[in-house]
Amino acid sequence: MLEKLKIVLSHTTHPGNIGAAARAMKVMGLSALALINPRHYPSAEATERASKASDLLANANVFNDIESAIADCRLVVGTSARTRSLPSKLVTPRELAEIIKQSPQNVPVAIMFGTENSGLTNEELHRCHYHVYIPTNPEYSSLNLASAVQLISYEMRLAFSELKHLPEQRVLENEEQITNEQMQGLLAHFEKAMLATGYLNPKHPKQIDQRMNRLLAKAQVTESENRLLRGFLSSIEQLIDQ
Amino acid sequence: MLEKLKIVLSHTTHPGNIGAAARAMKVMGLSALALINPRHYPSAEATERASKASDLLANANVFNDIESAIADCRLVVGTSARTRSLPSKLVTPRELAEIIKQSPQNVPVAIMFGTENSGLTNEELHRCHYHVYIPTNPEYSSLNLASAVQLISYEMRLAFSELKHLPEQRVLENEEQITNEQMQGLLAHFEKAMLATGYLNPKHPKQIDQRMNRLLAKAQVTESENRLLRGFLSSIEQLIDQ
Repeated sequence: MLEKLKIVLSHTTHPGNIGAAARAMKVMGLSALALINPRHYPSAEATERASKASDLLANANVFNDIESAIADCRLVVGTSARTRSLPSKLVTPRELAEIIKQSPQNVPVAIMFGTENSGLTNEELHRCHYHVYIPTNPEYSSLNLASAVQLISYEMRLAFSELKHLPEQRVLENEEQITNEQMQGLLAHFEKAMLATGYLNPKHPKQIDQRMNRLLAKAQVTESENRLLRGFLSSIEQLIDQ
Repeated sequence: MLEKLKIVLSHTTHPGNIGAAARAMKVMGLSALALINPRHYPSAEATERASKASDLLANANVFNDIESAIADCRLVVGTSARTRSLPSKLVTPRELAEIIKQSPQNVPVAIMFGTENSGLTNEELHRCHYHVYIPTNPEYSSLNLASAVQLISYEMRLAFSELKHLPEQRVLENEEQITNEQMQGLLAHFEKAMLATGYLNPKHPKQIDQRMNRLLAKAQVTESENRLLRGFLSSIEQLIDQ
């Protein structure tokens, strides 16, 4: 699905934004980029900002009008920062992902981004089946163009990537949490050491045992951490025994 | 909560990224920015890329070491693109939002971003209670620094903004969907016109009535659209009557 989502940038003013958008797409696994009348393009700045996503720029199709850019698309979505009367339904990026998921046959999907200053034109807005609105701070909602592409691409990756969202986390050696028996041994060792230093007064124990139990449970003590703590406790006892 | 989330940028190389990060934060309603030994700062490029978020740069605190930058923070989170052995739990941005939500007392929260090329240092990684990993394309996972700040800030806004995610959509005049009675009238008008043009053959109706019903139901025809279609149908009839 990700390669069937076409990002359409209309009348982009700054070529750096085109490059940054290409990078934003590729990082999320999107690849289809269409440009409608970019002001400066091709451009060294676009290539530089694309970093290792310059293949998307090389494969990008450049069009003179919106009709040609979206001719092969079945679902057309516009991004809009404006809340003015829109000709079709306004959805969040996450809702958009859900809508696409429910009609996977409606590909290719065009997701259109207007010019930096004024967004999509009225003509472009009227081509859209949906409008997607990225939630922003009402006091400053000026999202950078490439940032908007990044956020939409991210939501699409979360919705459509078949890969797990988190890589396997390699377990550090001895990272297993200690058994309950080891935990009781550790707690007993703490109690013994605290008695030895005089910190724990048997007449006024102040629930120190329970509080230590809670603390160490929260810490999810591992084997190696257990050895570390026991070593420290033993060193205290040795000091006292001297 | 959003203003208690401190974005910490460590040893950032490109000042443009600092500015773009400030803009990314402000658009999502975050405001607390800390910088650890930025290579070039303050910088005209940072201010330019910050656009109208230069107040975040003006209020940013610059530190010489990580200890001072996170001294007041209770929960410390590192962003990591690496999947190598990490000293603490790896979570997605969405899971991180959930973790913060469940312990709202653990503020301020530091969310640390390392240098562009190599990320957080081992020393910094070991300060973290959690590591957040932004799902990316395994074939090209090089997320721009400001883009990473943008995505994390977006997830935090979705989780913590008390405002609705979508603005009220102003309803276009006469955008009410037609009543069932009007729908039946419209369908009857289509049938009449199709009979008049000869398109509909009463001997072989081909379920055209049902298919039109389905089509118009999907279209959720509004009052004004109903008038438009009826006007068109009437014009066909007039043409035939001449």
